[in-house]
Amino acid sequence: MTILLDANDVEQLAPMPRLVAAVERGVLEEAQGTVVMPPRMNLTMRNGGFFRVMPALIHKSGVMGYKVFHGAIEWGVRYLIVNYSQENGELLAMMDAHYLTAARTGAATGVATKYMARTDTPHVAVIGSGLEARTNLLGVAAVRKIKRITVYSPNPERRAAFAKRMAAELDIEAKATDTPEACVRGADVVVVATNTTGRAASIAYQGKWSEPGMHINAIGSTMLRLREIDPDTFGNSGRIVVDSRHQVENESGDVVAAIKENKFPPDRVFEMKDVIGGSVSGRADDREITLFKSVGTAIQDVMAGFVVYEEAVRTGRGRDVGELLSLKQFGS
Amino acid sequence: MTILLDANDVEQLAPMPRLVAAVERGVLEEAQGTVVMPPRMNLTMRNGGFFRVMPALIHKSGVMGYKVFHGAIEWGVRYLIVNYSQENGELLAMMDAHYLTAARTGAATGVATKYMARTDTPHVAVIGSGLEARTNLLGVAAVRKIKRITVYSPNPERRAAFAKRMAAELDIEAKATDTPEACVRGADVVVVATNTTGRAASIAYQGKWSEPGMHINAIGSTMLRLREIDPDTFGNSGRIVVDSRHQVENESGDVVAAIKENKFPPDRVFEMKDVIGGSVSGRADDREITLFKSVGTAIQDVMAGFVVYEEAVRTGRGRDVGELLSLKQFGS
Repeated sequence: MTILLDANDVEQLAPMPRLVAAVERGVLEEAQGTVVMPPRMNLTMRNGGFFRVMPALIHKSGVMGYKVFHGAIEWGVRYLIVNYSQENGELLAMMDAHYLTAARTGAATGVATKYMARTDTPHVAVIGSGLEARTNLLGVAAVRKIKRITVYSPNPERRAAFAKRMAAELDIEAKATDTPEACVRGADVVVVATNTTGRAASIAYQGKWSEPGMHINAIGSTMLRLREIDPDTFGNSGRIVVDSRHQVENESGDVVAAIKENKFPPDRVFEMKDVIGGSVSGRADDREITLFKSVGTAIQDVMAGFVVYEEAVRTGRGRDVGELLSLKQFGS
Repeated sequence: MTILLDANDVEQLAPMPRLVAAVERGVLEEAQGTVVMPPRMNLTMRNGGFFRVMPALIHKSGVMGYKVFHGAIEWGVRYLIVNYSQENGELLAMMDAHYLTAARTGAATGVATKYMARTDTPHVAVIGSGLEARTNLLGVAAVRKIKRITVYSPNPERRAAFAKRMAAELDIEAKATDTPEACVRGADVVVVATNTTGRAASIAYQGKWSEPGMHINAIGSTMLRLREIDPDTFGNSGRIVVDSRHQVENESGDVVAAIKENKFPPDRVFEMKDVIGGSVSGRADDREITLFKSVGTAIQDVMAGFVVYEEAVRTGRGRDVGELLSLKQFGS
């Protein structure tokens, strides 16, 4: 049985606590060496747009598949996640992954926050007011008790709307601030989730604002042209954890800029799998500033897709299209 | 609009002459440098099975996509082709590609035969009696006038049934033979399309049988464990054309064996794109023995998938599932 899931289906079938648990399981498998994940393919369309192919096989979880996402300035971006069983090879699900990409990014932030933030983190600051700002806040909320949030984004209406929505959704205090600096002052955890390009001094977060004990998650700079945190944010952090060292060094404009200024020192940079696997601790002490920087991995996508598939089976949601793929026997 | 096509749909929507023309167009674009096709990914499942990911972007044809196929001894192989438009990024079709993989292999053989075989080739010999034997014969029939075929495969019932079926389908004489040697004697074009492993001296075709002027297409050895033509088949050919040099050298057991015996000499090996693009001729003269060896490329898959998609639109066949993928605007 193959299930098709559109944008509405997926948003209904992606509970954040389950996504966080699934991403954590996937990264733990990565640490244990039971994952096959080649560097993702970055191909270029004729109009200059990108076409990215990201497969992962996650052995113990019994799942495999890939995300393909592609986009161009002229038309936007589309995301597809396809999941297969490693039990019997069946094509399980094909789903729109626009929301899920934002949600699994939030789930990865949740996993990082669980291992890296201090235990008691009542105040979360959010820079950004879009879909990723929301899903990354939900990721933090899945692993820590939050009492209040502050939010900043350049547009006053959008930041006010975000505060209002999240106050209701999480049943917490929420306040929009007029500056990013006011937003992050005194925060225990910071989420930076923007799509700024860093032009005209519009970097969204500056390292000089980091305070002792703070944990920062930054997820917006997933392409070289996107810039949201400055090199000092890396330089002022006691440890930096990334989801994929190879990818962040090649794909994140923020990381490339930090490397240029020698603020991405190898002895303070670790991969998420090292932390989840237990070979590196998430923070040294309650005063260390910690930074999680992610660009997204296929493990996150495939594990998140599998949660959505399981929820679809459990709830009967989605379109069952039978066995789409026929089976060729060896020797036939 | 996204169209889903199952095994039955695809077989009805894959006319060989259109597939041959599409593969030829794709390879011509490859020669012209308007194709993006990275080496395909060969990943390994936990049970030792394979998971292969093959994308291609074909710019002038306005199409892009990929095939993913995966299999294990325990359960068999499944194939999926996904096509997108390069005009607007839309997900056009997702289809079962079990039959289409065999058909596009036949189409590639058709293209090779068109450029490499002598003009007058009334007698085609076929070694093998499975799906690929049929589609590769159809590929040859799409580009040359055939009067008679001979067929050999080890099982007498299967070779007799194949002869009967193809005689009716192509309206030609067809005869099953008791040995492969008798099958190929005097043939103008030979198709070798088996799944032999070459163990117990069961190589399906031997180079000592090659005759002046013969053109041989061999498509069965697509993995290292599969062996169907011996090193002399390469050694006795005046020129050898392959669909992808990188892939045949890494994936075909036949080519690896020929390289070991120094019978795959660089000065006589060319890629299909060189021949279609016009930088190399398909044969020197009417007495040269020519060999086409293919393992399949993503260009063949994506171009074939696009033909099937176009036929589906034209005939209204397949399942329209609306716009499966939502569109994320930049800046949202």
